[in-house]
Amino acid sequence: MTETLRIIGIDPGSRITGYGVVEKRGASFVHIDNGCLTTRSTGSMAERLEQIYSGLMEILEKYKPDAAAIEEIFFAKNVASSLKLGEARGVALLASIQAKVSVFEYATREVKQALTGYGQATKDQIQKMVKSMLKLPEVAQEDASDALAVAICHLQSYRMRKVVG
Amino acid sequence: MTETLRIIGIDPGSRITGYGVVEKRGASFVHIDNGCLTTRSTGSMAERLEQIYSGLMEILEKYKPDAAAIEEIFFAKNVASSLKLGEARGVALLASIQAKVSVFEYATREVKQALTGYGQATKDQIQKMVKSMLKLPEVAQEDASDALAVAICHLQSYRMRKVVG
Repeated sequence: MTETLRIIGIDPGSRITGYGVVEKRGASFVHIDNGCLTTRSTGSMAERLEQIYSGLMEILEKYKPDAAAIEEIFFAKNVASSLKLGEARGVALLASIQAKVSVFEYATREVKQALTGYGQATKDQIQKMVKSMLKLPEVAQEDASDALAVAICHLQSYRMRKVVG
Repeated sequence: MTETLRIIGIDPGSRITGYGVVEKRGASFVHIDNGCLTTRSTGSMAERLEQIYSGLMEILEKYKPDAAAIEEIFFAKNVASSLKLGEARGVALLASIQAKVSVFEYATREVKQALTGYGQATKDQIQKMVKSMLKLPEVAQEDASDALAVAICHLQSYRMRKVVG
C-alpha cells in the first residue's frame, strides 16, 4: 500500500496569507490546491486577523492535512513590520492547533536546500522548482508558491527521516 | 441614572498575558478583577497561543466588557522578540473580536498621560497610581497592572470625549 501524506504550507501576512496543499503519494508529490487569503484593506488589524483565522480554518477543515508547515522568521524590515507579521503568524498557528494539525517550522535556508539542494537559491529558482515539482501550469502567486515550497520541504524532510529511521 | 462602562485592558505576552477589568460608574473607577495568564514553558508556541486565546475567551465571556484596550507597541528589544510579542498580541486581538468586543489602542505615552498627567512617568509611578485609583490593597503584578492602566486610560479618554462631545 502506498503511504499518503497531506501537508499544508502556510505563509502568513497581514495583507496576504498564502497557502498550499501538497500530497506525497509514494515517491510523487501531488499538488492539491494553493491560493491566497487577502484581507480587506479597510478593516482594522483585529478584523484582518479574524479574516485570516476564519479563512484558514475553512481551508484546514476542507483539506484535513496531516500536518502544517510554516517558515521560521529570523528577520523583518523592522520591529513594526515583524510585529504585524507576528500577529498574522499567531492566528495561523492558533488556527492549526485548533484544527488539531501539528505545525512544523523550517528555516528559509532549509526550504531552499530541500527544493534545490542549495541553501542560497534565489526566490525565482524556488518558484520554478515548485512549479516543476508539482507540474503546475504556471508559477503560483508569490505567497502561495512560498507556502507550497515549505509544504514540499516538510515532505522532503519527512522522507529523509523515513530513510534514516 | 448612572452610566456604567466596563473595560478590559490586555497586556499580551508569549509567557505572561496580563488582564484587568475596570468599571466606570459615574465619576468613579471600580476594580472588578485583574490577573495573569501564564503559559506552560514546556509547550510549543502554537500551544502557548492556544492557552492565551482560550484563557482570554473565558475572561471575556465571564466579564462581558463593553470594550477592550491594549497598548500600541512601537518598539521591542529586537525583531525576534517583537515577532513573539506579535503572535501573542494577534491571538488577543482575535479573541476580542470573536467575543464581539471592540479593541482600542493607546500609545504608552497616552497611558502615562491619562494616569498621571505626565507622559514620561515611570513604571513605578504608574503602578502606584493604578493601585491608588482602584483602591487595590497592594500593587498588582506587573503585567496585570499594565493591563489595568490601559483600561483606565480608555475610560479617561472616553470621559474626555464625553466632556467635549
